Amino acid sequence: MKIKDIGEQGLLKKLQSFCPHDIIGDDAAVLSLDAQKQLVVTTDVLVDGVHFSDITTPPHSVGWRAIAANLSDLAAMGASPLAVTVGLALHGELSVNWVEQMYQGMTSLLAGYDTPIVGGDICRSRLTTISITALGQVNPNHVIKRSTAQPGEVIVVTGVHGMSRGGLELLLNPSLGTHLTQQQRNKLISAHQYPQPCLDLLTHLWEMMETTVITGMDSSDGLGDAVLQICALSGVGAQIDLSSLPSISMISQWFGAEQALNWVLYGGEDFELVLCLAEEKAKRLVEIVGEEAKIIGKIVEEKSVILMDGEKQEYLNFGETFQHF
Amino acid sequence: MKIKDIGEQGLLKKLQSFCPHDIIGDDAAVLSLDAQKQLVVTTDVLVDGVHFSDITTPPHSVGWRAIAANLSDLAAMGASPLAVTVGLALHGELSVNWVEQMYQGMTSLLAGYDTPIVGGDICRSRLTTISITALGQVNPNHVIKRSTAQPGEVIVVTGVHGMSRGGLELLLNPSLGTHLTQQQRNKLISAHQYPQPCLDLLTHLWEMMETTVITGMDSSDGLGDAVLQICALSGVGAQIDLSSLPSISMISQWFGAEQALNWVLYGGEDFELVLCLAEEKAKRLVEIVGEEAKIIGKIVEEKSVILMDGEKQEYLNFGETFQHF
Repeated sequence: MKIKDIGEQGLLKKLQSFCPHDIIGDDAAVLSLDAQKQLVVTTDVLVDGVHFSDITTPPHSVGWRAIAANLSDLAAMGASPLAVTVGLALHGELSVNWVEQMYQGMTSLLAGYDTPIVGGDICRSRLTTISITALGQVNPNHVIKRSTAQPGEVIVVTGVHGMSRGGLELLLNPSLGTHLTQQQRNKLISAHQYPQPCLDLLTHLWEMMETTVITGMDSSDGLGDAVLQICALSGVGAQIDLSSLPSISMISQWFGAEQALNWVLYGGEDFELVLCLAEEKAKRLVEIVGEEAKIIGKIVEEKSVILMDGEKQEYLNFGETFQHF
Repeated sequence: MKIKDIGEQGLLKKLQSFCPHDIIGDDAAVLSLDAQKQLVVTTDVLVDGVHFSDITTPPHSVGWRAIAANLSDLAAMGASPLAVTVGLALHGELSVNWVEQMYQGMTSLLAGYDTPIVGGDICRSRLTTISITALGQVNPNHVIKRSTAQPGEVIVVTGVHGMSRGGLELLLNPSLGTHLTQQQRNKLISAHQYPQPCLDLLTHLWEMMETTVITGMDSSDGLGDAVLQICALSGVGAQIDLSSLPSISMISQWFGAEQALNWVLYGGEDFELVLCLAEEKAKRLVEIVGEEAKIIGKIVEEKSVILMDGEKQEYLNFGETFQHF
């Protein structure tokens, strides 16, 4: 059944089970923050054909990824999730099942963090567009900023990069990567369709922040973009060691060195954290996170971001990063 | 200049002055609630060609109306505004000026309530879609619910209804209402393009709520819809007195009785409040608000919503209300 056949009220009734609060017109959700905590808020807009498509993302994955992006933003601020709202502009030809599957994807990820959908809006449109706003709360001492990186600190990434982009390319061009095993293909595709936000790390980061400054953001727009943004806002530069980038050798092996570098630095949507902190603490953090976390470089005074490949040096610039425009 | 020519970063820089916080990638906004207050949140999605268009709404009005709808939702919960986020999917052919004008419209209305835009997201799309999430705060004793109306209470509307819809019709069909004076036409068009949310009333409502229960919601989806929703959620019915409806006689005079009734009850987007409370308090409220507020009927035990026109009675049903689907 298509949503144009069921009408707004019919659709809202179907979705009621996913949303305990006001999306069907009940009394609005009223939320409480923990004592002493502050509120953070983040919004993401996803457009059919730009951020998702039938070819790359089944509806369950569309919902999962939309939530993952927002929870990742909260994690990047040091905040734990409180609630989300879902604003939907839906094409009338979409099936009701598509919408239900998408909600299922959203609530599957949210359930792990005990986070409800507390409201939203649904209207019909010629182009399906999903807008998620996530609310989080944070102890004022645990806010992770982008603007506080200092020369002498090292840069840690919490996990692999480039896999999501690799998965996207396989989905768009199934003839690519036919030399990969099914397991390798699945790993890449799963990185694209079901990314995990780094919320589980927060307790460790909060503990470290009692005695040290941590600067950071997530790598949703690419690892290169994250380092560039942190450096620009902190008034510093960085040196990144190419060989230390997690997953670079694996992706190189699979797709060649140039492709690998492009995806790892500019692929985006890996939803890992890029953090700057004192080396000693960074080493402990890498131990805690496990083998996929790595120290990839250091913060320096000179305001350029340089990629070091043995003797070779390359300057990273904003223009090169992945852009939807 | 079109936004496709200026790129994402260029556009974000242009919009920086409207948003003091993270929309351009600065550190995220961290907000504090007043002591003892709870958080409420509301989301609205607006689609080009459905909720606004070049024919009916200049960009300044698009922004104003998007904010008005959300502030009205907050007012309807008894909450004062804290911050908003703006999620934009923008057509590449839109001019940068259009986007700036829209932000100007948003901030013009927000400035009156000292409410900042604290974040958002911008991406390009084949169809311009605007998603606003408004955050508000409310004393737990001052939350206005939809589900607490009691037989014996009367129903108050805080202002005129049907004018916004009348204005919309004039904009869509300029040949309509040629018998109206320019002043009358302007009044209708302004009701559509620049509605005022009822936030200024809140201090009076909070004071009354210290000693009485107030139930209510806003009339954004129509006065009829508001009464039906309150009754359905409260498990009661209502009798509405046709002759008491504000603006019904004026619109009747201008467009005929049938059109007037349809617009006043089902037109929507008037952004007034529909409140149920004890008669004595209601009379005081009407005095406070002034001549455009009226007692329009009463809450009864029998679970129908009946429109009384002298001797004649008509049942109101959800199916008749204005629907975007």
